[in-house]
Amino acid sequence: MILEKSEMAHDGETIADVMLDIGRRARSAARDLATAPTEQKNEALLAAARNLYDHLPIIRDANQADLTLARESGMAPAYIDRLTLDKARVNAMGRSLEEIAQLEDPVGAIMASWTRPNGLKIDRVRTPLGVVGIIYESRPNVTSDAAGLCIKSGNAAILRCGSDSFATCHVILDCLRKGFTEAGLAPDVITLVPTKDRDAVGLMLGGLSGAIDVIVPRGGRSLVERVQSEARVPVFAHLDGVCHVYVDRGADLEEAVSIILNAKLRRTGICGAAETILIDKNAEADLATPIVEALLDAGCEVRGDNAVQAISAAVLPATETDWRTEYLDAIVSVKMVDGVDGAMAHIGRYGSGHTEAILTECYGTAELFLKKVDSAIVMHNASTQFADGGEFGMGAEIGIATGRMHARGPVGVEQLTSFKYVVRGAGQIRPK
Amino acid sequence: MILEKSEMAHDGETIADVMLDIGRRARSAARDLATAPTEQKNEALLAAARNLYDHLPIIRDANQADLTLARESGMAPAYIDRLTLDKARVNAMGRSLEEIAQLEDPVGAIMASWTRPNGLKIDRVRTPLGVVGIIYESRPNVTSDAAGLCIKSGNAAILRCGSDSFATCHVILDCLRKGFTEAGLAPDVITLVPTKDRDAVGLMLGGLSGAIDVIVPRGGRSLVERVQSEARVPVFAHLDGVCHVYVDRGADLEEAVSIILNAKLRRTGICGAAETILIDKNAEADLATPIVEALLDAGCEVRGDNAVQAISAAVLPATETDWRTEYLDAIVSVKMVDGVDGAMAHIGRYGSGHTEAILTECYGTAELFLKKVDSAIVMHNASTQFADGGEFGMGAEIGIATGRMHARGPVGVEQLTSFKYVVRGAGQIRPK
Repeated sequence: MILEKSEMAHDGETIADVMLDIGRRARSAARDLATAPTEQKNEALLAAARNLYDHLPIIRDANQADLTLARESGMAPAYIDRLTLDKARVNAMGRSLEEIAQLEDPVGAIMASWTRPNGLKIDRVRTPLGVVGIIYESRPNVTSDAAGLCIKSGNAAILRCGSDSFATCHVILDCLRKGFTEAGLAPDVITLVPTKDRDAVGLMLGGLSGAIDVIVPRGGRSLVERVQSEARVPVFAHLDGVCHVYVDRGADLEEAVSIILNAKLRRTGICGAAETILIDKNAEADLATPIVEALLDAGCEVRGDNAVQAISAAVLPATETDWRTEYLDAIVSVKMVDGVDGAMAHIGRYGSGHTEAILTECYGTAELFLKKVDSAIVMHNASTQFADGGEFGMGAEIGIATGRMHARGPVGVEQLTSFKYVVRGAGQIRPK
Repeated sequence: MILEKSEMAHDGETIADVMLDIGRRARSAARDLATAPTEQKNEALLAAARNLYDHLPIIRDANQADLTLARESGMAPAYIDRLTLDKARVNAMGRSLEEIAQLEDPVGAIMASWTRPNGLKIDRVRTPLGVVGIIYESRPNVTSDAAGLCIKSGNAAILRCGSDSFATCHVILDCLRKGFTEAGLAPDVITLVPTKDRDAVGLMLGGLSGAIDVIVPRGGRSLVERVQSEARVPVFAHLDGVCHVYVDRGADLEEAVSIILNAKLRRTGICGAAETILIDKNAEADLATPIVEALLDAGCEVRGDNAVQAISAAVLPATETDWRTEYLDAIVSVKMVDGVDGAMAHIGRYGSGHTEAILTECYGTAELFLKKVDSAIVMHNASTQFADGGEFGMGAEIGIATGRMHARGPVGVEQLTSFKYVVRGAGQIRPK
């Protein structure tokens, strides 16, 4: 149900009141969901998928309404595309829920187990985090993907969609909630914030009086930046994915070209796409020329330092800003560096802590790089575009985190959990 | 070296400048420390211990100076006792560092390892968190205990001691730093904030422009409360340890009395001490009378609900406040509840998420309690006073956390780490 601001305001109820009530109800629903049986959670996910398939016409109607408003307000075509749901996309949302149902349930898993000399048996057991707040923008499919991952990991979810997908997301939420309740879960395990008022975001970032355990922003840089700077609760996110590929003197040239073209150009808009290529200037044979030419031939704009500019007139000069830029486009910055130490110094200065790769047949150099570079993901002789929960075999992910706390790298169902210690005794008391 | 505010102010340098510089230097030192060999870190810890032993007279002189000031300002005897260092206590600090040296190095440990169908080999590898900020009060031994745990886990530490132990802690820090540098570590792996100005705490809680990854407060409730409410970086802490022991109808009475006396009275001042006893009113034989009498006989003040007050005239009435109070003293609140569900409802309402125990020979009831109660530590037939990193076999702890994120329960060297993914390939590129 979508509330108008005026409706909420009646009886003097403020947005803060509405949000605090949502928080309280989510926290309460989370308590039961935390120990819900795996079968029930899986049934809920499958029922939600069925409800999406069954309500395709209603979803499309709501989406048309959102699209009409978006076109009237002159949104860019790329934006309109992200907002659009057709049958294939709705089916993909349903399938994604079915895949999440297939994942192993992390809750209750015994992470470690040991017995103390006094006979106490200690288990470290996975538990849900509690309540996850998700703040997202135009893609309506985040509604079901994020909700599905939260339910599977035993967490209640409070979703705040973008204003432009408001109608679409509410219909999707109704389908999900219908499925969840059909399986006997409480309706409040999932809530969509019923107002477009931006104050709701600020209230969520404040944690709703302790009702939200973690915030996951899904969207562009400005959203993530606001969330990271304002949130008073932990945030799983990455601000930038300025991913580096370092081509060492020991690299196999053919393999290097193949990996670099894939890392940069397979899909330029994903966070694991390479943005800067660092090339060892100490290579006996020249690595830079064929790599730069391959990038130019593939239609990629190359911005380089002086040495790279000397390779081709087509290379544009790179500025200081380029080394910090996540292009998310067919543009790459290329720099000559003094071996692996030069590469690591550059990454230490300009990297965003997301994913960096080294290409070399010299395993000693590779291991040094893998050990010393402090990014969420470090790779040897592979494309940075593998930086993805699905490619890691972790199943669907709610995002990739670059913070060092709790969840780092792909955030899947396991990363949406906490743990507790279960101690089983036989009357032990602690000696003086 | 201890700076006076006037010294820092010269050349227009503000406290913020000093603190930001400390942050930058700690971050830089943390980078090298992150990959320092285990042997070097252990040598550093042993050398630090030697320096503490060797400088006992200087430490005692500084401590005498602090004690004189504390007595002049009329500090309570318990406070004076916490502040006092004698030979035994300095030796204990040294031994604690030697024990930390014996712990397994968590850094570099492979937490999980798997190979993808495309041949990519993925390791999840432990890494340090980075820079740990520790804010503590009167106990000078926190300086060496906390620093030792940070160094072992590869983290740089920025320490902010209490004003009353300023001289003592600075001499201890000089000893530690001397030891660390003798082993070849950078001096900036450990810093003690060189001013008593309270603004320094606020600056640390702000994270020093991203230089601090986590804050650990060590001290009383008011310190932890301030840190939790103001910190803009993650905090490992617990505000309260209102630990419950629930005595089920299935409990063995003799064992229950033994555990309750230990849980409440072994040491009343530790966070794992029991504060509330919940007794099943459905017990066929009366459990409450012998338990309450045993507590009274042991010299414990008992505050109870009506049913408990009926047991003995010595029982005082418990107010609503009692159920929320961590006495840290020989006082206990006792309540009759309607079975395990009543106990869990009480804990859900009043618990602080630290440690709760169930006493029963009925394993079904015990497992229900262990599963449903969402505290950092849940126990069956054992004393809550085992809630301690050392007793868990995790080695020394920097504290106990009740948050659900990252570290929960005892925070030892392993909990002071993060992780990264190391991906080893052979030229793999990601298919379209």
